[in-house]
Amino acid sequence: ASVEEEASEVYGAKSIYMVSDGTGWTAEHSVNAALGQFDHCLVDRVCPVNTHLFSGIDDSERLVKIINQAAKEGAMLVYTLADPSLAESAQQACRIWGIPSTDILGPITEAIGSHLGVSPSGLPRGAPGRSSHLSEEYFRRIEAIEFTIKQDDGALPENLHKADVILAGVSRTGKTPLSTYLAHKGYKVANVPLVMGVPVPKTLFEIDPEKVFGLTINPAILQTIRRARAKSLGFSEEIRSNYSEMDYVREELEFARRIFAKNPSWPVIEVTGKAIEETAAVILRLYHDRKNKCSMPRISKRY
Amino acid sequence: ASVEEEASEVYGAKSIYMVSDGTGWTAEHSVNAALGQFDHCLVDRVCPVNTHLFSGIDDSERLVKIINQAAKEGAMLVYTLADPSLAESAQQACRIWGIPSTDILGPITEAIGSHLGVSPSGLPRGAPGRSSHLSEEYFRRIEAIEFTIKQDDGALPENLHKADVILAGVSRTGKTPLSTYLAHKGYKVANVPLVMGVPVPKTLFEIDPEKVFGLTINPAILQTIRRARAKSLGFSEEIRSNYSEMDYVREELEFARRIFAKNPSWPVIEVTGKAIEETAAVILRLYHDRKNKCSMPRISKRY
Ligand SMILES: Nc1ncnc2c1ncn2[C@@H]1O[C@H](COP(=O)(O)O)[C@@H](O)[C@H]1O
Ligand SMILES: Nc1ncnc2c1ncn2[C@@H]1O[C@H](COP(=O)(O)O)[C@@H](O)[C@H]1O
Ligand SMILES: [Mg+2]
Ligand SMILES: [Mg+2]
Repeated sequence: ASVEEEASEVYGAKSIYMVSDGTGWTAEHSVNAALGQFDHCLVDRVCPVNTHLFSGIDDSERLVKIINQAAKEGAMLVYTLADPSLAESAQQACRIWGIPSTDILGPITEAIGSHLGVSPSGLPRGAPGRSSHLSEEYFRRIEAIEFTIKQDDGALPENLHKADVILAGVSRTGKTPLSTYLAHKGYKVANVPLVMGVPVPKTLFEIDPEKVFGLTINPAILQTIRRARAKSLGFSEEIRSNYSEMDYVREELEFARRIFAKNPSWPVIEVTGKAIEETAAVILRLYHDRKNKCSMPRISKRY
Repeated sequence: ASVEEEASEVYGAKSIYMVSDGTGWTAEHSVNAALGQFDHCLVDRVCPVNTHLFSGIDDSERLVKIINQAAKEGAMLVYTLADPSLAESAQQACRIWGIPSTDILGPITEAIGSHLGVSPSGLPRGAPGRSSHLSEEYFRRIEAIEFTIKQDDGALPENLHKADVILAGVSRTGKTPLSTYLAHKGYKVANVPLVMGVPVPKTLFEIDPEKVFGLTINPAILQTIRRARAKSLGFSEEIRSNYSEMDYVREELEFARRIFAKNPSWPVIEVTGKAIEETAAVILRLYHDRKNKCSMPRISKRY
């Protein structure tokens, strides 16, 4: 769990500097995954860590200045630099100033290069002369995002058949964030709320059931989430009690369970304790599995 | 540019297997960045590549089966496995079968571990006993996503002051995908379309100008994008010609430019040729820069 740094340094916190000639998201993603391995220590800030992301660094002046600052702070450096001479500069400066450093891009690029028998370009993303982003994938992704937003919260049920993935679940099972997450991966997603006493759109039962996924969650956790939401939305006491009252929560989950039981080909996914990207991974694994009927479930792409 | 694999293997394509005990997104992200270094060869599939992502692999039986399959296919392996004994198994199996392999998680985890003076847990994400996702960050992210969806396309201008970031630009400058991308990073985003002949909401000029970003784009590229959109939306010839006619496109960009000129504290960001995540990186760099008035622009977080 990270929080944007508002104030100044916390005493004793260790720093991680991340430098990229691109966006920095690759370095950040890897550091985030690795920091997950220190959750036992990060909790309650027993071993506080500050990360600092420097993006768009494609000249050695700024690079060296940042590394110099890292040295002063006793930070470590994580970098992704496509230009081999810049990556070499980073490594050398870190050696000279005694900073631990990790190259995120170099090793994997080298391995892929030998595997393909092709030399890497050494050109950072966004370098002049690189192909622009107006690819088929670009348009597909944008279309998916716009479709998904329009379909949020049960809107336009007549369009359900146009979706790649349809998510059904009671309020606060994470349908909306899951939908936009999957949309950014290029999938057109529609989500359909299951609300006790409100008829479910008929189209949900008329479309290809292979595309539908049910979401379920532990009732106690759901109640906690709903209480937080009711408070933040400023629901009146009366509505709130109904929405997040334990009996009501249980009954509504049972209402959803009966719908799922009547549609046994929909996988029902347990979201309790899962981050958005974790549930998304489960959904996409099943989605591709169903489409490809592979002996080993996988998500395949071609480049 | 990747395309989901529909059919079977392309003759001569090289395979990259990615295995994770978690979602696989970290491995995929790193491989994607590295593949960017081979764009010159991937274009037109001169050196075709297929990637295969195996997520949730946390036992050695499935791991070894996958590596065996990779060996048969002449693939290489990229892995993120938190359990050191499983990572060791992967390395050994690859050595035995002569498969090139790259460990994405191990090196960065080890480096961070020494830097912090703490041993990694060795527990994959989602392992029992790990903390659940109901963190402050989780709620903040969900709130940001829901806020952002409600504010799409100029909706609810009375809420602009509640946003962290406000994006203003003509149609097809990527406001919507940028907004949801930033929302997934925890920022509340509102986007305001600038349409010639339509009054801009007054609130845009009343809120903190430090939060507003203008988007601009090359007119010829914008015309191409608009033509594609007009076609996909099935606009009638008449509307379409207005929307994507060069004179109109230029005039509308000029209309936006004048608004930006009257608000000189809004940075104007050129989106031509940039991927969503690239523009997002530029916006967030400026956003944090303005907030922190740092000598070295950076995005800082604490853990
Ligand atoms: N499409 C791409 N083409 C070339 N290089 C890329 C591409 N995407 C990412 N990279 C490189 O991979 C590293 C990580 O990128 P980023 O996640 O943007 O920081 C940087 O060194 C980028 O220059
Ligand atoms: N929050 C976390 N806690 C522990 N391990 C994590 C966390 N996030 C990612 N990892 C590990 O980092 C690697 C990459 O994760 P993923 O991107 O989900 O494939 C996997 O080995 C995960 O088990
Ligand atoms: Mg919702
Ligand atoms: Mg839009």
